[in-house]
Amino acid sequence: MTMDDQKNRASAWFRDLRDQICASYEQLEDTVDGPNGSDTLPPGRFERTPWDRPEGGGGEMSVMRGGRVFEKVGVNISTVFGEFSEEFRKQIPGADEDPRFWASGVSLVSHPRNPHVPIAHMNTRMIVTTKHWFGGGGDLTPIFPIAQDTEDFHAAFKATCDKHDPAYYKKYKEWCDEYFFITHRGEMRGVGGIFYDYLDSGDWEADFAFTQDVGKCFRDIYPEIIGRHMNTPWSDADKQAQLVKRGRYAEFNLVIDRGTKFGLMTGGNVEAILMSLPPEAAWP
Amino acid sequence: MTMDDQKNRASAWFRDLRDQICASYEQLEDTVDGPNGSDTLPPGRFERTPWDRPEGGGGEMSVMRGGRVFEKVGVNISTVFGEFSEEFRKQIPGADEDPRFWASGVSLVSHPRNPHVPIAHMNTRMIVTTKHWFGGGGDLTPIFPIAQDTEDFHAAFKATCDKHDPAYYKKYKEWCDEYFFITHRGEMRGVGGIFYDYLDSGDWEADFAFTQDVGKCFRDIYPEIIGRHMNTPWSDADKQAQLVKRGRYAEFNLVIDRGTKFGLMTGGNVEAILMSLPPEAAWP
Repeated sequence: MTMDDQKNRASAWFRDLRDQICASYEQLEDTVDGPNGSDTLPPGRFERTPWDRPEGGGGEMSVMRGGRVFEKVGVNISTVFGEFSEEFRKQIPGADEDPRFWASGVSLVSHPRNPHVPIAHMNTRMIVTTKHWFGGGGDLTPIFPIAQDTEDFHAAFKATCDKHDPAYYKKYKEWCDEYFFITHRGEMRGVGGIFYDYLDSGDWEADFAFTQDVGKCFRDIYPEIIGRHMNTPWSDADKQAQLVKRGRYAEFNLVIDRGTKFGLMTGGNVEAILMSLPPEAAWP
Repeated sequence: MTMDDQKNRASAWFRDLRDQICASYEQLEDTVDGPNGSDTLPPGRFERTPWDRPEGGGGEMSVMRGGRVFEKVGVNISTVFGEFSEEFRKQIPGADEDPRFWASGVSLVSHPRNPHVPIAHMNTRMIVTTKHWFGGGGDLTPIFPIAQDTEDFHAAFKATCDKHDPAYYKKYKEWCDEYFFITHRGEMRGVGGIFYDYLDSGDWEADFAFTQDVGKCFRDIYPEIIGRHMNTPWSDADKQAQLVKRGRYAEFNLVIDRGTKFGLMTGGNVEAILMSLPPEAAWP
């Protein structure tokens, strides 16, 4: 199989995963009951906005706003190509000798309306320079951490990792804990998950299968956790705690997140990059 | 006069200016009428929190929260000293040969409740390494810019500048426009004001007098502009526009502002540094 076939299969999968996730979230919007149920708000729907990158490629933002379950959730896909600027060539594996790159991925950030439902993030991507690799992961940020949710979220990713390599889980869980750390606050962004990057085992099919499984794992476990709490009533104090946690989330994304910085500095699609920011946040 | 006398006079002035400003804002809280007047909320009062810097010096945060006029306003003073880390020595004038520094200043960010009242920022400071200089400025960020306000704000700073040097206003206004620019959005943070740094004309008394006048100018002009709009009714749409503008303000402070980055990277007082963040913000 040629690299072009691999690129096509990867980007087709990211699109397919996006479709599966959006359909499942719209179904949750239809079935939710409780304090944000059908008597107050119409079920949320995704709105899709395609965009072109002048230098090559483009993407599609899918954003649901003001839903019953999801106050704001964005699922972006993009496939872009071009040449890295001088300053990035030294930072990206394989770009030093030849600045051309291709990158495709799907990324998701979910800000639920109900403070008892955790914020969540998932991203998987394939990058090609003179080298090629996969990266991604999923992590959970509850406002009020519940041991059973955290345990099940980690167990799901452990099962996914163990299916592919017994060394993956420990390594990628630790990487996640290290990465999603708000340095200036001295606190973790959430309760973790997994994070991996530069994955090239030498077997593209195996790495692609793992990346697909990471996406499927998140696709399945997050709605399960949502379902446990989406009908739980909340108080004004719960909502305020959620707004403060979202403020910390925004701090991480704007001050620390490599992907956000990279995107903003390289003239990426600002709306798509900052889709991760919360619909409302507070710094009281 | 020795440098110690100069340090003492500067830091005493920053404290004095803080006291004058806090008193004037508490008076506005007592006199405001209209949609956030006396029938809904008690007048806001500043709460003072002193803090120590383990490496030397400290400061005092003064924050008013949930007021009638001010949804959140913070006025910080600090006087700190110590040695710059290896990585900062090359970035700070005069710190290369001797890493010791002393710095004192006052900084203010105001987030009014009423969307028709502009957000505002003021900061003045004196820094001493083997060199010494003043820096600071004031700038205005209206949600709905009003030509008369912008004109009067600029005119007040022009008069202040012209009193000291005919070249200052043009230079410091342009510096402000350049500095308070949200690069990734391609937009200005607000309508500007003045910004100056590394001011050492060779006449410390003159530079200190200018720095005092910048503080006095802001002390006088901002309440005048507040008074014009603080009793104006607002709609939900006005409030939403304010929350979105505050989101952009947070983006600037977290992604771009040198002072914020410098503070977070050098282990400054996180609560004091991030006091500038809005009480509530939105990224719809």
